[in-house]
Amino acid sequence: MAKPIIDTLAIIGFGLIGSSIARAARKSGAAKRIVACDAAAPARRTIAKLKLADEVVADPAKAAAKADLVIVATPLSAYPKLGKALGKAMKKGAILSDVGSVKRPALDGLGATLAKGVHLVPAHPIAGTENSGPESGFAELFKDRWCIVTPVRGTPKDAARIVEAFWKRIGSKTARMTPAHHDRVLAITSHVPHLIAYTIVNTASDLESTLRAEVIKYSASGFRDFTRVAASHPVMWRDVFLANKDAVLEMMGRLYEDIATMQKAIRHDEGATLERLFSKARKIRRSIVQAKQA
Amino acid sequence: MAKPIIDTLAIIGFGLIGSSIARAARKSGAAKRIVACDAAAPARRTIAKLKLADEVVADPAKAAAKADLVIVATPLSAYPKLGKALGKAMKKGAILSDVGSVKRPALDGLGATLAKGVHLVPAHPIAGTENSGPESGFAELFKDRWCIVTPVRGTPKDAARIVEAFWKRIGSKTARMTPAHHDRVLAITSHVPHLIAYTIVNTASDLESTLRAEVIKYSASGFRDFTRVAASHPVMWRDVFLANKDAVLEMMGRLYEDIATMQKAIRHDEGATLERLFSKARKIRRSIVQAKQA
Repeated sequence: MAKPIIDTLAIIGFGLIGSSIARAARKSGAAKRIVACDAAAPARRTIAKLKLADEVVADPAKAAAKADLVIVATPLSAYPKLGKALGKAMKKGAILSDVGSVKRPALDGLGATLAKGVHLVPAHPIAGTENSGPESGFAELFKDRWCIVTPVRGTPKDAARIVEAFWKRIGSKTARMTPAHHDRVLAITSHVPHLIAYTIVNTASDLESTLRAEVIKYSASGFRDFTRVAASHPVMWRDVFLANKDAVLEMMGRLYEDIATMQKAIRHDEGATLERLFSKARKIRRSIVQAKQA
Repeated sequence: MAKPIIDTLAIIGFGLIGSSIARAARKSGAAKRIVACDAAAPARRTIAKLKLADEVVADPAKAAAKADLVIVATPLSAYPKLGKALGKAMKKGAILSDVGSVKRPALDGLGATLAKGVHLVPAHPIAGTENSGPESGFAELFKDRWCIVTPVRGTPKDAARIVEAFWKRIGSKTARMTPAHHDRVLAITSHVPHLIAYTIVNTASDLESTLRAEVIKYSASGFRDFTRVAASHPVMWRDVFLANKDAVLEMMGRLYEDIATMQKAIRHDEGATLERLFSKARKIRRSIVQAKQA
């Protein structure tokens, strides 16, 4: 097995993503030693029972103290408090990273109170499933998926390279972006689709009860694909929308205009307009298949 | 193998659904003889090459003349013209059915000009993939999926039972509804989700070009699931929206209100509202998993 990239890896927040990182880091030999930290006692018991880490602790500062790389994998709302605890606890030369779906909070929350000599390298692996909790993770989650790394002004080049090497070792491809650009890209590729999926599922669940039962029974006709997206972690997503408010509202505005165009075409029996718009969408699908992201 | 349910089966429109019916009917022995009809010469060549039917014709009247069951599997806009041709051509006692995603056009288009003694039994199998054309069909497409049968006033009970027996033989479960109720259920479970998927894909494709390339690259984050739905046949879907205009516009109105609620909660940082709405959606997903439709 290749040489480890990290001596001691601390993972703060051990849900689907955190536990998948631990499993992948072990399997690939990316880290010599893994310290798991989770605020919830049932999660800590599961981690211990499944032997997912070398050490399991409740206190983030304790987990971070000896770590060379700390990866925060909690909901975004935990960042400001965590930032304060980690900033003081981490050793000089260590790297602080995260996996959040919005990068602004990594700067504002984790980065604000960092001690001198501790390097912030925010990251975001584009991977996930509809399941939550340490038991739902698996080592192959990041295989051939992108991990976007968003180094900030003043980050030493070596620190960014170590984070990229770590993600490559556990199977990902890496790309770099500025945090602001990342947040706009994700607003349209991820946040708005999730918001719409959540909404359409709720619209269906507010129907009169006879109709609602049938929505479930006949969900294979398209609805089902939306519910899969809408099964994701509610607290994680609440934090995403609050943290990426501006980009999400901007993209929602654009979507609104396009929905209005579609509705108007239906209302006025404009078949040619509909066919043109549907054909255009089909082309985008083909690009995704060609880019091997399907 | 069990006794055939149909002696001669004619399938008019031999795309994904039509060709899957033929494959399944052969495999299960549901029909003794299959006549395929498609208006497009390349489709007819593919049918002949893949030996998907006993006879391949271009003229619907010719295909229907000797058939005991005629299944129309074309886009809905072909129904009025087809209805006129089939109504005169079919033999007494034969059954005319279809597979359309909206049932109103089966009554208005196919049913309007039916000769006396020919029985109309509209049906709709809830199954499909993003692919089109005779080469993309497969015999297992309908396995364990629902087929909704919508008999009309005056349909002999035996005719409806034969159609149900046919769908069961090729693997489906069957249910009955009135055509109008079917069209409302499908508006929310299928038509509105497809409309939204088409729209969101187009919104993304209208972004400035640097952002658009990244949407494709990072589509695994949620967007991809929408593009799969949006890859469906443009002409088929154009016809669906025009034919089910009232129910689709009603459901879109409800969805609009719910989107506005979500947007407002984001704009005003109402985290508790978002978390409550997301948790509610997650419950619906669990019902679908429990109903084994996931």
